[in-house]
Amino acid sequence: MGRQIAAHGAEAVLAGIRTGTLDGVDERRAAAWRMRASAAGDPDDDLARHRFVIPGDPDWPGQLDDLGDARPIGLWVDGAGDLRRASTRSIALVGARAASAYGVNVASELACRLSDRGYSVISGGAYGIDAAAHRGCLAGPSPTVAILACGVDVPYPAAHQDLFAAIREEGLVISESPPGVNPTRLRFLVRNRVIAALSRGTVVVQAAPRSGALNTAHHAFQLNRQLMAIPGPVTSDVSAGCNNLIRLGKAVCVTSAEEILEQVGQAGDDIAPIPRGPVTRRDLLSVESKRVLDAMPGGLGVIGPAEVALKAGLPLPVALGCLGGLEAGGFLKREGTGWRLTARGRGR
Amino acid sequence: MGRQIAAHGAEAVLAGIRTGTLDGVDERRAAAWRMRASAAGDPDDDLARHRFVIPGDPDWPGQLDDLGDARPIGLWVDGAGDLRRASTRSIALVGARAASAYGVNVASELACRLSDRGYSVISGGAYGIDAAAHRGCLAGPSPTVAILACGVDVPYPAAHQDLFAAIREEGLVISESPPGVNPTRLRFLVRNRVIAALSRGTVVVQAAPRSGALNTAHHAFQLNRQLMAIPGPVTSDVSAGCNNLIRLGKAVCVTSAEEILEQVGQAGDDIAPIPRGPVTRRDLLSVESKRVLDAMPGGLGVIGPAEVALKAGLPLPVALGCLGGLEAGGFLKREGTGWRLTARGRGR
Repeated sequence: MGRQIAAHGAEAVLAGIRTGTLDGVDERRAAAWRMRASAAGDPDDDLARHRFVIPGDPDWPGQLDDLGDARPIGLWVDGAGDLRRASTRSIALVGARAASAYGVNVASELACRLSDRGYSVISGGAYGIDAAAHRGCLAGPSPTVAILACGVDVPYPAAHQDLFAAIREEGLVISESPPGVNPTRLRFLVRNRVIAALSRGTVVVQAAPRSGALNTAHHAFQLNRQLMAIPGPVTSDVSAGCNNLIRLGKAVCVTSAEEILEQVGQAGDDIAPIPRGPVTRRDLLSVESKRVLDAMPGGLGVIGPAEVALKAGLPLPVALGCLGGLEAGGFLKREGTGWRLTARGRGR
Repeated sequence: MGRQIAAHGAEAVLAGIRTGTLDGVDERRAAAWRMRASAAGDPDDDLARHRFVIPGDPDWPGQLDDLGDARPIGLWVDGAGDLRRASTRSIALVGARAASAYGVNVASELACRLSDRGYSVISGGAYGIDAAAHRGCLAGPSPTVAILACGVDVPYPAAHQDLFAAIREEGLVISESPPGVNPTRLRFLVRNRVIAALSRGTVVVQAAPRSGALNTAHHAFQLNRQLMAIPGPVTSDVSAGCNNLIRLGKAVCVTSAEEILEQVGQAGDDIAPIPRGPVTRRDLLSVESKRVLDAMPGGLGVIGPAEVALKAGLPLPVALGCLGGLEAGGFLKREGTGWRLTARGRGR
């Protein structure tokens, strides 16, 4: 649908869905979209009650464009915060619902310190690490952003109704799902890419192997965002995912808010957000991806992965991950078994 | 003294100390050596009671030669084990005296599994991590080696008298200090280089910042031995040294015995120790140092550090550390601002 809207505009796509006249969409998918459109309740009423921010709006966060065709069509936004301002200097803190006391304490402590340093904390509003991260940020001066897998008006989990109310006072509760929609397993997974793309870096505080937090970490890695993890006891299942990310060199080991900021801090860090124009895509690249980009030959020169790794001074698996991410971001184009710079990659 | 003995032989040096006729030794040092020689008690009696192994003996562990001039003059050895056999497939587990229950459990568990896999565990016989490591290894089939900072017959700490007796049954209690000598702060620090040099890799299980275990880690790093650390809670002082080693990329994050063995395991790992001839120095190099060595130009070609880092695919600080270690190990020679291979580096 992202591709359809990019090609024809949202209104033409909606008309095409209703009349069954969309080009290049197979029958099954067209039928599913038709069903969703007819089940859409009362969009005018939704828009009267909640803000809906779309690409091109002044408060659309440009960094979401790194998601390419998977960019959200728009975001439902509730709360007093400014979406672009709250997400420009932001860190995602994510982790297990079944967190230990250690994880909860570390998450709230880190979030509070990041908030003190002018960074908003982004998380998913769930039990455990997410809630601790939001609460820690609320204790400081910066807004916190909860990205939900359900409608922004759906109190899920129900026990977090007061937490979401507190978040709305200064920060934001956002979702790409329309109001009234309930969370599903698929919506959680799809939501995670927005957490990773919106923030400058993702910190996994506690995560069991094969958990949702690792899914967010995977998105951050693919998007060339800074990926960090908090180490924990090797005897704790809920730290095993973190220790493993560190061990494999996918995540940087961080033990304090200062170390997190050292990781995401770039030149121009303390410059206020530029009033117009999104954060440039290159600003959001990881250090490794920038090194890969710098190692590319100019013009239309093609280079193989081993040579890139050598020139960038990176282990081959890391270089390969960066190449894939840079390709997804439109910086590089595959050419046979190698890569070359695109116009965007050449900085034009 | 290492230099003197290498140049003139031990007997000539001892005679020179006694008569005050040593060349190239300043007065203060010569006087200190004279005092130590006259305070030496009854060496013949010591030799009747304890083995003394020196370089060139069949059971001298060749890897100690990597210490260069700082190589021990000899090692006093007590116990049923074979020194060379026990140290060829060996891992040092080191850490805090004031270890937490977490550290003690992890140390004994890892030691037991390493022992099961045919690796001896080397440690320093102290309270905390050291004792847990020795005890864990004793529970398995492989010998454990305690390297003391006092004489092999001095029960320090006194509470470990039974532990040392158990170690002697299959393994070894060794020291470069003569029998009867008490431990001092300096002897602990000097002893740590022997722990690092004797083992194929060092694992820091728990360590506070600026602790003795980090001193051993530093020696392992300098000697290009595999350096590993066990991650722990960021809220625990006694894990801060470990997390920091990991964070700085000096130590590899390991969470199990299998991961430790993956780190030190090399081709030929399961080949029994070669009856004669020491383990080659190159076998003991870290993966990074081998990559640096492979990146060096042949013959007498000189290369600068930035180019080495690039060719080896390593960050510059890591490459610099390796270059320094390889120079200390006699593989490389400094030439202006660059390095070139020595005959040893060229594999001759």
